[in-house]
Amino acid sequence: MIIIGERINTGFKDIKEAVMAHDPKPLQEWARKQAAAGCDYIDVNLGAVSSKGSDMAWMIEQVQAVVDTPISIDTNKEAILAEAIKACKKPPLVNSTTAAQAKMDAFFPIVADYHASIIGLPIDEAGTPKNAEKRVELAALLLAKAMECGVPTDHVFLDPIVMPLKFLQDQAKVVLETARQYPLLADPAPHIVCGLSNISNKTLHKKLIDRTYLAMLIGAGLDAVIADAMDVELRQTILTAELLMNRQIYADSYIPA
Amino acid sequence: MIIIGERINTGFKDIKEAVMAHDPKPLQEWARKQAAAGCDYIDVNLGAVSSKGSDMAWMIEQVQAVVDTPISIDTNKEAILAEAIKACKKPPLVNSTTAAQAKMDAFFPIVADYHASIIGLPIDEAGTPKNAEKRVELAALLLAKAMECGVPTDHVFLDPIVMPLKFLQDQAKVVLETARQYPLLADPAPHIVCGLSNISNKTLHKKLIDRTYLAMLIGAGLDAVIADAMDVELRQTILTAELLMNRQIYADSYIPA
Repeated sequence: MIIIGERINTGFKDIKEAVMAHDPKPLQEWARKQAAAGCDYIDVNLGAVSSKGSDMAWMIEQVQAVVDTPISIDTNKEAILAEAIKACKKPPLVNSTTAAQAKMDAFFPIVADYHASIIGLPIDEAGTPKNAEKRVELAALLLAKAMECGVPTDHVFLDPIVMPLKFLQDQAKVVLETARQYPLLADPAPHIVCGLSNISNKTLHKKLIDRTYLAMLIGAGLDAVIADAMDVELRQTILTAELLMNRQIYADSYIPA
Repeated sequence: MIIIGERINTGFKDIKEAVMAHDPKPLQEWARKQAAAGCDYIDVNLGAVSSKGSDMAWMIEQVQAVVDTPISIDTNKEAILAEAIKACKKPPLVNSTTAAQAKMDAFFPIVADYHASIIGLPIDEAGTPKNAEKRVELAALLLAKAMECGVPTDHVFLDPIVMPLKFLQDQAKVVLETARQYPLLADPAPHIVCGLSNISNKTLHKKLIDRTYLAMLIGAGLDAVIADAMDVELRQTILTAELLMNRQIYADSYIPA
């Protein structure tokens, strides 16, 4: 399982204040904690705090000063991506492009140039489709664009787009159906990723909903997740689900104390 | 979710001693507890303690003296089934038949006569198939036999046959693939059931493995389970997974205190 740590995001108050004050400590503390928790990528999100690529690059540099974990560059703006990606010491994950033509045209060549990977959202100019068929169709477009630009299909992380259970309850099942179809779209198969906590937006019992849905998603083929890497029960679910999918060899001691 | 409480089974020491002594109290205590925990059927298993149908009938009568929950008659012996089913006040679930011809010929007519339901195992004279394709083929045989005998297809509970993770690690994924195909076999769709605790046989972390796999199975379409109804975290997983599959309306208060 590829775990993308979600915590260095200006949506969190401590990170917002740190970025505004250019204080590296909170970013570095979360970078260390998430790396120690086993993250494969550390997501870095500048949010609405600034529109300058140099601020995103500053965030990335602070993280890289304390951990070796690759960066997930969380932006949908080409200018920020183009500047931030230069700061990455290792090939990053770009989070994310939609299947809208202009966005794909902007993002995929940059991803190719830096041997990066990229999260692809099956969203087009008309928005997010409500059914699995149209999402899979847009995912196929994303893969076609990747191939055209020389990005290997296993550098593409397809997102089935998790929606809030509380407001769009029929979508959780549609997302499972979508995820199941993604591996069939290309060889080598793309990764399947999601932003997990969307499912429990505004609910009570957030962590229970997150880990139950994550087990279902892994059963449907998900192999990467943007999540709270500090949630011990969530990590236990991931380890257990990986064994059940035969991706790790079973050992009685698989849960570290 | 249809929950079949597994606890009244002579594999447990207290039940074995109670049946041998014809002491109804332990059976009735477990019947009350499991009914209170929301079981839809109470499984009754005589095991190797006796080969007499009258002993199974006695067990059923003790349970029915204290709860109204329908019985799951857990036997693979025609003679025991034929006698025990007469004792049932409500149409029971028969647990279980294989797809072996002689077994189907014996069990399905009894099930039809009593308007009962039945668990069907995709096992034939050659044993349990290792792949999904052959399991689905045997499941189709079970449904064909049901239709021939006048048992509605939604009275058939197809079991994908959960195997121990520790010894047959590749099977957990095969079982998910099998379950996904079952609803397509008949209209009205058969139920999908499993004996959950088989997955965690001889493992540490049994409950974690059970509830993680159950979430995956529900995501694959499972709608019935033979399980420990007293496991609070398992029941939380069931409730949450049901919401995620859009089988219950979401409410913030869905987890009772």
